[in-house]
Amino acid sequence: MERHELIEGRQPVIEFLKAGHPVNKVLVAKGNNHRALQQIISLAKEQGAAVQEVSKELLDKMSQTGNHQGVIAQIAAVEYAEVEDLLSAPRDPQWDPFLLVLDGVQDPHNLGSILRSAEAARVGGVIIPKRRAVGVTPVVAKVSAGALSYVPVARVVNIARTLDQLKEAGYWIVGADMEGEPCYGQNLTGPIALVIGGEGEGISRLSKEKCDFLTRIPMLGQINSLNAGVAAAVLMFEVVRQRTTGR
Amino acid sequence: MERHELIEGRQPVIEFLKAGHPVNKVLVAKGNNHRALQQIISLAKEQGAAVQEVSKELLDKMSQTGNHQGVIAQIAAVEYAEVEDLLSAPRDPQWDPFLLVLDGVQDPHNLGSILRSAEAARVGGVIIPKRRAVGVTPVVAKVSAGALSYVPVARVVNIARTLDQLKEAGYWIVGADMEGEPCYGQNLTGPIALVIGGEGEGISRLSKEKCDFLTRIPMLGQINSLNAGVAAAVLMFEVVRQRTTGR
Repeated sequence: MERHELIEGRQPVIEFLKAGHPVNKVLVAKGNNHRALQQIISLAKEQGAAVQEVSKELLDKMSQTGNHQGVIAQIAAVEYAEVEDLLSAPRDPQWDPFLLVLDGVQDPHNLGSILRSAEAARVGGVIIPKRRAVGVTPVVAKVSAGALSYVPVARVVNIARTLDQLKEAGYWIVGADMEGEPCYGQNLTGPIALVIGGEGEGISRLSKEKCDFLTRIPMLGQINSLNAGVAAAVLMFEVVRQRTTGR
Repeated sequence: MERHELIEGRQPVIEFLKAGHPVNKVLVAKGNNHRALQQIISLAKEQGAAVQEVSKELLDKMSQTGNHQGVIAQIAAVEYAEVEDLLSAPRDPQWDPFLLVLDGVQDPHNLGSILRSAEAARVGGVIIPKRRAVGVTPVVAKVSAGALSYVPVARVVNIARTLDQLKEAGYWIVGADMEGEPCYGQNLTGPIALVIGGEGEGISRLSKEKCDFLTRIPMLGQINSLNAGVAAAVLMFEVVRQRTTGR
């Protein structure tokens, strides 16, 4: 049997799921109707984790704490990178450093899609916040179509502070925001950290203040917004275009 | 019970009402005081549509997307356009005709996302096949975020024959395909029908033979493909870039 890390007990599993940590599978005791188990099942489903009903006896056998309370979650350890790893990665003289900072993306499909596009656009790393954002869940891994194996993801406590750190390391901080100028007339060559906001709310005020400039995709219709994954991809490939064609 | 098409979720219902499309009835969750619902109720009343308060449970039961956000609008069945309507639409002297042809997109999220991006990129109409492809379902309508109210969609029996028809009408047929040249060096101005293939399989051989030329997004990573909705958006906005900046 494949080895998993186990999280046991109702509250620990709830906390773990709520924190957005990746869970492979949640095993719940058949016939146990405790309210907390219902909550766990819906949290797990939101995250895209498999839920399986098993006998209490199996849980007893698997339990390492002797106190599973009717639920055990199997987790896989996703390895997040450190921002320092992203900054110290060897540089390609033909390709300026290019990082993506996601300021509050909530939807695992969007995060997975963005990771897939980032890999294709030769982004060197993706930075996400620890709080109020989705982490690398199984759904994210699936939608990323394998990109997670190639693009390191770092999780940070404070995005604004990280932007300062990137600035000191020589990056231009470019925020995607409707107040910006159209991206096509801007210079997106050179070392760039592209900041993309969350669905609905966009970049936070604090992050926006850290940006060297803002950029936007011209919206020619009535609706005035794109899906977050689409907007990120269009801007990433505008960077690719400028870099590969010399603007 | 009478058969209706449903539009679910606050933003899609707002966009649908704002565009002046006829709505039979708007069902809102009792006790839900979200500001957007107040706006929906007044928009619906302006239009003369019936508004009914119902239990959240009824909405849950009716919902086909699982994400009604407290509101479902019942509308008359989606009206598809005819290709002839797209071709005879009045032309803007400042904007060359721009159509999108989807050759076998299967996933409703992708179709909805593509419609949303198309609306923002000022695409004049979208053509989809009747068979082996998703039609305009409630999920498509929801993901399109209201774009369906502005972008006509035509369904055709035979995509290859439609491409001939577009060619005769003066369109350049441009196929998105990995065998093409990088899009950034190609001329995508002028009247264009951009052909996007389905997930996995890409453009069919028959459609590919009808293309005047093939175009591709440069893939700089290991994975060599983008999500269909993302690829469509990146190419549509490359057309926007060339048209708005004079290349």
